[in-house]
Amino acid sequence: MTKVGTFDLVAEPFHCDFTGHLALGVLGNHLLNCAGQHATARGFGMGRLNEENYTWVLSRLAIELTGEMPRQYETFHVDTWIESVYRLFTDRCFALRNHLGQPIGYARSTWAMISLQTRRPADLLTLSDGRIVDFIDADRPCPMDKPGRIRPLTVDPTELIRVRYSDIDINGHLNSMRYVEHILDLLPMDVFRRQALRRFDIQYIAESLVDDTLALSQQRMDDGSLVVQIRKNDAETICRAKLEIEN
Amino acid sequence: MTKVGTFDLVAEPFHCDFTGHLALGVLGNHLLNCAGQHATARGFGMGRLNEENYTWVLSRLAIELTGEMPRQYETFHVDTWIESVYRLFTDRCFALRNHLGQPIGYARSTWAMISLQTRRPADLLTLSDGRIVDFIDADRPCPMDKPGRIRPLTVDPTELIRVRYSDIDINGHLNSMRYVEHILDLLPMDVFRRQALRRFDIQYIAESLVDDTLALSQQRMDDGSLVVQIRKNDAETICRAKLEIEN
Repeated sequence: MTKVGTFDLVAEPFHCDFTGHLALGVLGNHLLNCAGQHATARGFGMGRLNEENYTWVLSRLAIELTGEMPRQYETFHVDTWIESVYRLFTDRCFALRNHLGQPIGYARSTWAMISLQTRRPADLLTLSDGRIVDFIDADRPCPMDKPGRIRPLTVDPTELIRVRYSDIDINGHLNSMRYVEHILDLLPMDVFRRQALRRFDIQYIAESLVDDTLALSQQRMDDGSLVVQIRKNDAETICRAKLEIEN
Repeated sequence: MTKVGTFDLVAEPFHCDFTGHLALGVLGNHLLNCAGQHATARGFGMGRLNEENYTWVLSRLAIELTGEMPRQYETFHVDTWIESVYRLFTDRCFALRNHLGQPIGYARSTWAMISLQTRRPADLLTLSDGRIVDFIDADRPCPMDKPGRIRPLTVDPTELIRVRYSDIDINGHLNSMRYVEHILDLLPMDVFRRQALRRFDIQYIAESLVDDTLALSQQRMDDGSLVVQIRKNDAETICRAKLEIEN
């Protein structure tokens, strides 16, 4: 089994936004699917240890676009591989190519594995007999900066959203890509019209359940980036994101 | 080319709801995709007549579930065919089968073709040299009642929703399946937990654009069904839906 998994996909019509390009939230879903298939095919998709079921949890995701997103009905290709494995986290990279095989972007993600019973993290170096370590491809280039820390915002929220049935995933939590969609929905349509979103970083901090009220705050930083923070029920921060948008 | 098109699909993890079953809105998206592919492969996918571009517009959709929706990672199969063609409308049917090939539901849809320039409907009997008529399969059974009229509601709305970037499709209109998702989001979670939604009928009446405010009204009818109506910007009704839910 190769270290790198390659997946061939199509930009379906209802997965494209009003500009005719694949929507970023849908691309994110595809990346998570490719990650799951890559891991499952190599024996570290889900863990089972001492009668406990484990599942992968996404901690960070950063997508950087260097070319044009696929248009309706165009094929595109996702390569994914494991860059590094630590005791509690693993870094997975992605490279995106368009229907001509040209690079159009990269992504980096950080994952933990947690027990579904205790919600505690597992030791990745020993789970599944440490099988994941055999697939590390540390030398393959992923030419984008690693995600940095996103500092907390203190500004007031500009948007309140209630989490609904269609927002939640198979585990009963707010779907990872709905965080992304709710954040994209804050942007003026002109950003999409100009294809100006170059990079999207998100850090997942806490889960959210149906009927939670989400409060979205946003602030333009000195470096021109837009930081968005989501808190739930006037308390816990559930995620922070940083968007790099061309002027 | 056969009259019936058959498509093999998989219930992807991020397309399943918290019960682990494929979400109805995602199923609807799959049906529309299958319809598009079936039509395109048979030469009536999009029309072009007198320099005008035409596109299919969904007018009605009814989905009836007779078995269990596919679970995460299960394959399922969609058959689709044209039942009848009139001057301005065509009726398309669907049959759904699970990974064992057992029937799990049916769907009926009504479509018009409109000019993208004038927004006026085309004559289906003459467009593309009437090619669609060659594919009518009037004898194939679709054992569910045809959609009936859904009467207007006069009750006050219970929910206001603003249309956002992630809600709109490639034409800049509210995505057909987002109407469905917004309506499903009105239901108590118990309906999904019990897998109690047996039938969903929707009539599309008008389009909606980004930043429209949608007002959703709902009323339980004497026959036990739930009728939902969506108006935009305190004016036009954009759709009505009728949901049959088991007690």
